[in-house]
Parts: sequence; structure tokens; C-alpha cells
Amino acid sequence: MHENIVRIRCVKPEIRVLGVDDGVFVPHAKSFAVVVGVVYRGGYWLDGVMRTEVEIDGFGATEKIASMISASTQYHQLRAVMLSGVTFAGFNVVDIKKLFERVRLPVIAVMREKPRFNDIKKAIQNLPEYSKRWEAMENAGEIIEVHTRGTEQAVYIQIAGISEKDAKKVVKSTSTRSNIPEPLRVAHIIASGLTQPKENV
Amino acid sequence: MHENIVRIRCVKPEIRVLGVDDGVFVPHAKSFAVVVGVVYRGGYWLDGVMRTEVEIDGFGATEKIASMISASTQYHQLRAVMLSGVTFAGFNVVDIKKLFERVRLPVIAVMREKPRFNDIKKAIQNLPEYSKRWEAMENAGEIIEVHTRGTEQAVYIQIAGISEKDAKKVVKSTSTRSNIPEPLRVAHIIASGLTQPKENV
Repeated sequence: MHENIVRIRCVKPEIRVLGVDDGVFVPHAKSFAVVVGVVYRGGYWLDGVMRTEVEIDGFGATEKIASMISASTQYHQLRAVMLSGVTFAGFNVVDIKKLFERVRLPVIAVMREKPRFNDIKKAIQNLPEYSKRWEAMENAGEIIEVHTRGTEQAVYIQIAGISEKDAKKVVKSTSTRSNIPEPLRVAHIIASGLTQPKENV
Repeated sequence: MHENIVRIRCVKPEIRVLGVDDGVFVPHAKSFAVVVGVVYRGGYWLDGVMRTEVEIDGFGATEKIASMISASTQYHQLRAVMLSGVTFAGFNVVDIKKLFERVRLPVIAVMREKPRFNDIKKAIQNLPEYSKRWEAMENAGEIIEVHTRGTEQAVYIQIAGISEKDAKKVVKSTSTRSNIPEPLRVAHIIASGLTQPKENV
């Protein structure tokens, strides 16, 4: 299905990649969690920040993140989107295939640990529209192990709109500071730093 | 007055510096502006983010920023504080001497352009407690020109708790991506990116 893959001809050192993560939120609350997107150039330079909000344990994360990306002034410079896993704000599941179709950018979900599907299944069974959530989880496809930095701990990825080979290249080239791609490491720091309950507001 | 200067024995490449800037706000509104602090290590790696809010055209920016810094888990790793100028949220003026006394860290206010004091004087004359604001402006002291990167445009600094020589070293060593120190370049991107009125919330 080659029309469903965006070929990245050459993973240049200065490739612009968006990293997306959610902030701190109260689990199960009838509320929203902040989601932050961070544009990195080549894993070294922060070039932009965007945000949206996603319903805790709800639906619509795919659509919200797609809108955030396409509304950004940096949309046309982006070459790939990285997500911190596929679940946001609890179990608001991003369908990475649909996200790719919406923004026409390769999507790579990156996880520190291999997701334990049995645990996730158990958790979402208690939530409304179980099968819709599970379908999005399954759409994320095969889990691929990547050693981003030599002997450091591996990470796990699921991909849409990109070949396994290209995805590995993007993930490795942006893991400049740790075994986690820099756009995701920093999206985590910003999203959680700005949503700490003890913040000095 | 050596007890009023923190000597930085050696400006190591991995020195941790906080950059502080404010976000977008409605001028003259009876409201608050978001202020973001970004911890950078050596001008290359973002290591933390903090936030506070400051009253538009009000008072208390010095105190609010001091509290934000001292409450941070990274306070004891910081070696210097950089501010994007001395006025926040309009004309809520930071007294950099007082900020230094509160946090016992060298404070460097960095400006892209030489402040035009006549214009500032005119603007704050219409605000309550003019003399208190002007005193804080004057406390910022002499304006020093620094060429952070070779032939690129100079920036202007005002300093407290640090020698001119050390301040220049810190400003130069952290200007890794542009002529503006990286903690301030990124604090600006984050603060403004998260407070855009057109944000997708």
C-alpha cells in the first residue's frame, strides 16, 4: 500500500519533527487534560510550541491533535509526528492511522515500555464504547523495538504512514539527549511542568 | 561590594540557567499574564519548565518570579537567572537587585534593543505609583552592550549580583542558536506558543 506511506527521502539532520504529550490531570475526572506539541529541528533546537485540550477518558484525541497540527503555522515544515504512546488523558485513544490520513504526515507512537495489552483491555472495559477504543488501539499495529542509542534501553514504536526503516531512522536521529526522541522528552517536561498542581499561579 | 556578587568560578559548558519571559496578554486589561521559566543546561538541553502569573501593569513581578524560582525542584542546580528585559506583563517592573537578594542567584536582564527610557518614562507616568516603578527601572543599573555571537547583532544587558565579565561569559556561552541566549529564546517560544489567543483549546 505504497500510497499510504510518506517516503522520507533522506532523514536530514535538521528534519522538523513534532513531539506530542499530555500534562498532569486528575484521573477519571469529568474534565480535560492539556496536550502540548513541541517542534524540534533535528533533535537539537526547539522551534515551536502548540497546545490543545483532550477529554479525560473521552473521545476525540485524534481529531483534536489533528486540528492542532493543521492549524499550526509550522505545519508545512513538519516531516513527522511523534506521540507519547497512543493513549492521551487516560484512555482517550489516538487512532494513528486516522491521524496520518488527516494530517498526511507519518505518525510514530513511542513508548518506554512494551504496552501490556491485557492491562489496557481490562482498564478500558469499564469505559463507555469499549470496542471503539479497542479498535483504535488495534489500528496502531505491530509493536517494533528500536535501540535508539547503542546499549541504552530500547524503546517501542507503532507507526502509520511510514516504513519501519524510515521510522527507525527518524527515532534514532532525534534521540540526541537520551534514549527518548528529544521532541517527546521536551514535550513531557513542558506539558507536565506547566500543569503541576503545585504551580505558583 | 563583593558580598553582593556571586562569583561564577568557571562558566562551564553545562551551566544551568533559567530564562524567564511572559506570554501574550491583552494590554491594560485588569488581568494576569502568564510568565514561563525555562531551565537550560549549557544552552543546549531543556531540563525544566515552571510558570507563574503576573498582574498586567501591576506590581509584584519581582516577588512572583522569586517565589516561582525558589519553589522549583531545580532551584539548587541553577547558577543564573536571565530575564527578557525588566518589564513583564506591560509595566510590572522587576527590580533585579531585589530579585538577586531574594534568590541569591545572579540576575541578567537581556534586551534585543537598547531600552528607550524616555518612552518608558512617558508610558509609566500614566500608571499608579509612578515613582515606585521608576525606582525599579533605575535599580537595573547601567546598560551593557554584548556581542554574543561574532558579527551578529549585539544585545543589551543589565545585571545584579554578578560581575560584568562573568555576565558576558554566561550570555555568550548560552547563545547557542542565535544572538539571544537559548533559555530566553525558548522561554519566548513556549510562553507565546501556549498563550496564543487562537489556540485550539
